[in-house]
Amino acid sequence: MEYRKLKDQDEDGNGGGDDIESRKPLSVTNVPTLGGTTVDWSKWKLKIFVVVALTLLTSSQGILIVWSKRNGKYEYSVTTSNFMVEALKCGLSLLALARIWRSEGVTEDNRLSTTLDEVIVYPIPALLYLVKNLLQYYILEHVDAPGYQILKNLNIISTGVLYRIILKKKLSNIQWAAFILLCAGCSTTQLKTNSDDVLQTPVQGWVMAIVMALLSGFAGVYTEAIMKKRPSRNINVQNFWLYVFGMVFNAVAIVTQDFDAVMNKGFFYGYSFITVLMILNHALSGLAVSMVMKYADNIVKVYSTSVAMLFTAFVSFYLFGFNLSLAFILGTIVVMVSVYLHAVGKQR
Amino acid sequence: MEYRKLKDQDEDGNGGGDDIESRKPLSVTNVPTLGGTTVDWSKWKLKIFVVVALTLLTSSQGILIVWSKRNGKYEYSVTTSNFMVEALKCGLSLLALARIWRSEGVTEDNRLSTTLDEVIVYPIPALLYLVKNLLQYYILEHVDAPGYQILKNLNIISTGVLYRIILKKKLSNIQWAAFILLCAGCSTTQLKTNSDDVLQTPVQGWVMAIVMALLSGFAGVYTEAIMKKRPSRNINVQNFWLYVFGMVFNAVAIVTQDFDAVMNKGFFYGYSFITVLMILNHALSGLAVSMVMKYADNIVKVYSTSVAMLFTAFVSFYLFGFNLSLAFILGTIVVMVSVYLHAVGKQR
Repeated sequence: MEYRKLKDQDEDGNGGGDDIESRKPLSVTNVPTLGGTTVDWSKWKLKIFVVVALTLLTSSQGILIVWSKRNGKYEYSVTTSNFMVEALKCGLSLLALARIWRSEGVTEDNRLSTTLDEVIVYPIPALLYLVKNLLQYYILEHVDAPGYQILKNLNIISTGVLYRIILKKKLSNIQWAAFILLCAGCSTTQLKTNSDDVLQTPVQGWVMAIVMALLSGFAGVYTEAIMKKRPSRNINVQNFWLYVFGMVFNAVAIVTQDFDAVMNKGFFYGYSFITVLMILNHALSGLAVSMVMKYADNIVKVYSTSVAMLFTAFVSFYLFGFNLSLAFILGTIVVMVSVYLHAVGKQR
Repeated sequence: MEYRKLKDQDEDGNGGGDDIESRKPLSVTNVPTLGGTTVDWSKWKLKIFVVVALTLLTSSQGILIVWSKRNGKYEYSVTTSNFMVEALKCGLSLLALARIWRSEGVTEDNRLSTTLDEVIVYPIPALLYLVKNLLQYYILEHVDAPGYQILKNLNIISTGVLYRIILKKKLSNIQWAAFILLCAGCSTTQLKTNSDDVLQTPVQGWVMAIVMALLSGFAGVYTEAIMKKRPSRNINVQNFWLYVFGMVFNAVAIVTQDFDAVMNKGFFYGYSFITVLMILNHALSGLAVSMVMKYADNIVKVYSTSVAMLFTAFVSFYLFGFNLSLAFILGTIVVMVSVYLHAVGKQR
């Protein structure tokens, strides 16, 4: 069902789906192929595709989570599902590579073998995310979950700042203003009656939230730097190495956190149809993020995921009867103006 | 005390107060004189002065209201105080005119006598405000007071739209975006725990709120059109006629609403020092609005009063220990970005 939706949207994004790629059913192997065989696609078409894909996948992620919670709590261990997501992404990348090797043969850009010099940077994003996830537990000792969601919007600012400093790409003044608005607007949509508690966060909570935002922003910017360092390098090879280290770190997490549970109950204990759907969704979202990093940038990623968050809330509103608060509506207006200003600011 | 503050700020606004006007103590008669004898002031200095004056007077208005409420409820009738405000503005305009006549003699531009053709438009703003104030009571049957404050922000949008349509002045796309942000930001600052009730406002409530916003916006734009129709006409003469009709309409209000109370207890029953301060403040604010209409425009007025609202909250926070909510902080960020975008958008 998610596939169907993604495909339809993709065809819309391509102005009626007149081109050969979008006539094929959007199979799993089709996604990574984009970076391989379809180099004749114009750049903006690719950008639109990855943005729409990321937005829809992120939205459906939120909706799946809401849906799964309505069907009762699930019992599977999160570390195993995270491992499965990395493994699936790795497998899909290899599958796409196999197709490319068959059609194009093995070249300098698509060969899997690598040098230490190339591969040494790949564990770093996975390591940063690991540290970030550990910090998260400490922050939640100082802030409640909705407050944490609001603090997470600091990622938007840190991503913009690090994007500017590390990748040395410039944003116009209007685009900086739009970025501040995106952060304020997203936070506004998440206001609840007890949101003011966030203001009582102790100093160490704030420091950790800022460190976490910097880690998260740095991981994103670093990934973009890796993906773009060699533009001709096949994205599937880059993904393969990125996800291999993801698998390694998640395997460590299984052993340290859920070893007994996995040993006693089995690796796939508690998996349901919806668990499989969520793993599939996370894997495809991950691939979409990689593509955004390679063919677009972190700024596009931040906007896509922010718009996806609002989209999720609107869909939840219609599907599950959630309340749309005035804060949500006002925040959405601010985010919409921010998206407009980001686009207008670019043209100057 | 308010005077002192106004004077200091004015001197800041004029870069150290090196010029002759700001060395004089800022007496009441000095305010209207600005439009008369000091035509040598450069236009931007005048604009800065009126904007700073309006912002400070509007801020102190809010602070006075908070202060007066803390000293217990006041017992005077609001219709008599409104009448006194109009009468004071009228008197100050005449005083300023007398000074001008003494120094410059009576000219075509500063004579008080007028033609029917000129004077016929002056009652219209007062009439519009009267209808608006009557409507207000009906809206408050459908919405509570904090909700009404939020709905009042529709004024911002209606002023922008009518400013564009009636005065045919253009705003850039960035400035329109900034205007939408101003409305969303101001509304966000006013969010309370029960603000979502506004969304339950029945259709007739919304219709009346929109009609009220249009009336209020139209009154502002119409006043600007009157003030600017003859740029050389002395502002004190224009004010005089504007406020004469204000006095007439408020006299009608006293008779229809508070006739018995005024007859039994007297006109000035319940007046305190703070009442006098508030009347003085309202009168000076009114004169500042007139000057903004003549030398700047409605857009400047909307921004001044919005910033004043935030300023009031910050001062109340420090003086009276009010809580600054997260919503207030987020809304303030959005308003600040809006002010920046309005300024940047102009330069294009």
